[in-house]
Amino acid sequence: MADVLHAARHTSIAPIEGGVTAPTGFRSAAVHSGVKAKTGALDLAVVAVDTFASMAGLFTTNLAQAAPVVVSRRHLEVTRGSGCAIVVNSGCANACTGEDGMAHARRMAEEVASALGCQPEQVLVASTGVIGVALPIDSVVAGIQDACSSLAHGRGSEAARAIMTTDPFPKEHAVRVTTPRGSFSVGGMAKGSGMIEPNMATMLGFITTDAQVEPAMLQRVLAESARDTFNAITVDGECSTNDSLFAMASGNSGLAIDEELYPALLDGLLSVSRPLALGIVRGGEGATKVIAVSVYDAATADEARQVARTIANSPLVKTAVHGADPNWGRIVAAAGRAGVRFDMQRVTVRIGGILLFENGLPHDESAPKAAEILKRDTVDIEVSLGAGSASATIWGCDLSAEYVRINGEYRT
Amino acid sequence: MADVLHAARHTSIAPIEGGVTAPTGFRSAAVHSGVKAKTGALDLAVVAVDTFASMAGLFTTNLAQAAPVVVSRRHLEVTRGSGCAIVVNSGCANACTGEDGMAHARRMAEEVASALGCQPEQVLVASTGVIGVALPIDSVVAGIQDACSSLAHGRGSEAARAIMTTDPFPKEHAVRVTTPRGSFSVGGMAKGSGMIEPNMATMLGFITTDAQVEPAMLQRVLAESARDTFNAITVDGECSTNDSLFAMASGNSGLAIDEELYPALLDGLLSVSRPLALGIVRGGEGATKVIAVSVYDAATADEARQVARTIANSPLVKTAVHGADPNWGRIVAAAGRAGVRFDMQRVTVRIGGILLFENGLPHDESAPKAAEILKRDTVDIEVSLGAGSASATIWGCDLSAEYVRINGEYRT
Repeated sequence: MADVLHAARHTSIAPIEGGVTAPTGFRSAAVHSGVKAKTGALDLAVVAVDTFASMAGLFTTNLAQAAPVVVSRRHLEVTRGSGCAIVVNSGCANACTGEDGMAHARRMAEEVASALGCQPEQVLVASTGVIGVALPIDSVVAGIQDACSSLAHGRGSEAARAIMTTDPFPKEHAVRVTTPRGSFSVGGMAKGSGMIEPNMATMLGFITTDAQVEPAMLQRVLAESARDTFNAITVDGECSTNDSLFAMASGNSGLAIDEELYPALLDGLLSVSRPLALGIVRGGEGATKVIAVSVYDAATADEARQVARTIANSPLVKTAVHGADPNWGRIVAAAGRAGVRFDMQRVTVRIGGILLFENGLPHDESAPKAAEILKRDTVDIEVSLGAGSASATIWGCDLSAEYVRINGEYRT
Repeated sequence: MADVLHAARHTSIAPIEGGVTAPTGFRSAAVHSGVKAKTGALDLAVVAVDTFASMAGLFTTNLAQAAPVVVSRRHLEVTRGSGCAIVVNSGCANACTGEDGMAHARRMAEEVASALGCQPEQVLVASTGVIGVALPIDSVVAGIQDACSSLAHGRGSEAARAIMTTDPFPKEHAVRVTTPRGSFSVGGMAKGSGMIEPNMATMLGFITTDAQVEPAMLQRVLAESARDTFNAITVDGECSTNDSLFAMASGNSGLAIDEELYPALLDGLLSVSRPLALGIVRGGEGATKVIAVSVYDAATADEARQVARTIANSPLVKTAVHGADPNWGRIVAAAGRAGVRFDMQRVTVRIGGILLFENGLPHDESAPKAAEILKRDTVDIEVSLGAGSASATIWGCDLSAEYVRINGEYRT
């Protein structure tokens, strides 16, 4: 443990350019395959590793799962986390598409494998876009062939654009991690929700690293980093049919990650995943503010997360923040219905550091100051439960009339 | 059982005028006490029984509970369901108001008891309105004295108006229940959510009957009738600090309810509670449509309710209905994340009777017809899970930009 702390203390992390192709050993390509109607719009990306990579994946917990989720989960099981590429299309979720959809997802992997000279099971597939519409598979296949023949280093930014639906901006990030025993890089890209044809918000995330990581450890670090990043965000509390988060480790840095270096790897993934996750929230449908809900002094971390999540998903809290209303009563009420131990006399509520509720009583004299803080584009809500020492943070966004407009228009 | 069915078959139910004072033995009064700023606006109601009544209550499950909830629950325990009156104020929730709030709630009961010559514990108290603001207790006390000196039969409608915050319309209903062994009446009033100062939605409901019912049976029939009425509605998924539902039975009809007549009593309460509950949904903040979500063929009734509730609370489903978009994909996705057994291949989805999804595949050719049906002011969503034979219905409403406007304005 002393060694682990020692290594962690001497690890430094610095942002670098390049997104998913910042780590060595990865090439990518992005093309317009025709899934998106708009001429020239990038809608298909392939990220391939030069040799073989360790791979890991996390998937939606929704029991209504899109074909690429079913196929990719199966591929990870069959190969035990050894793979060569991922392929992603935007514009069509390939969800609720029956047996044809399954065949299409498998076909995407087969085409990549055929072009790269690996097995179909070594390819992971992700799709995002409209539910219940069939993929134009011939166009997709042609797009995959194009992409695989133009794979190049240093073009991660195009891939980050190709996976967008109508996310307001692309989301990519990369860091260089330097430890006493050597250095490696971590890169990533993600997409959130859009309004190409207002439909299911879909979260896709892709992480690459040139650290040398065994598949089991890659799965572990992906899950641990996601808990406080991709799994700690909410736009509207909806869990999609397609949510997927993949990691690939090329090993090209030559630095093998053992238990001593694990904290450095975790830090690297956290450093990349956090801005990507926050980017998804900031680009959430209709969002004008990011709300960071931190719950302290909970009996357990799970209870802290549950309370933070309930507050972050409360439509009354979200609309109050949208309107810059320091409505602590809604925060208390949301915490009270979160299903965990709760004693109103022990609860304190702060907005932007301003104390608004304590000992069962309001501090409304501070409300005007809190209202000023609520006009900022990032708002901190802090709740202490007075029930223990665990804490958690969930990032959400406000609820605006624009959210209703985006999601209330007919898909035509 | 044969007898019970026989009695139920020969029971007839007919709507009558009069709300909470339709049943004999009840008097009510409504006054302007000054909690609401607007001159003359009714904001306080007392409903009293001529002699003694059986009483029952259901309360919010939120652990952040307003003072009147704590006090009324205690009073029901102490008296074991024997009481003489209820007192309700609107305009102030008396929630998050500390020890003073508790003293104010108790004082309200004391003043009613003193005026009517009963014990304070025989009075139930309810409040609705803004959270975290102290009751102007002197005005409230004067209002209670006024009200208690002007109690009269046949004035239930005024009480129904006095408990409103800015509900768009008052909600009251009454029925006459005729059984082979005699007849009795059931009346009720309720309030939902408003925008007087945009704040916590609060559900209050009050049921009266002149049937003779033991307290334990009154509690049982209240809980059973609420399950499919007041507890089967949602406006925004928020559970308030003040939600309360009270029942009083005067016994003045002379008809004693035993097990044989229990189904008739239940029918009477259901007949009154259903339109009140639907009125709350229809008058929900920003609501333009009622959405009836029925889930069939579930493994258990609890699972059916859970799926129906998840769909009815899904912001993506609510915005789609608002925009008349027959977006069955969002319905499937909400059902899939409801946390119950779910097999997409067995699910069917209908909107207004139009089949849109079956055997894992869309029927988009029917979407235009469903879009027409979605323009109506009541929309039926039907989901079959193919997992059993249980069913449940939850009533919700659409999510509009008006909801955001109502709840996003600063409380000034």
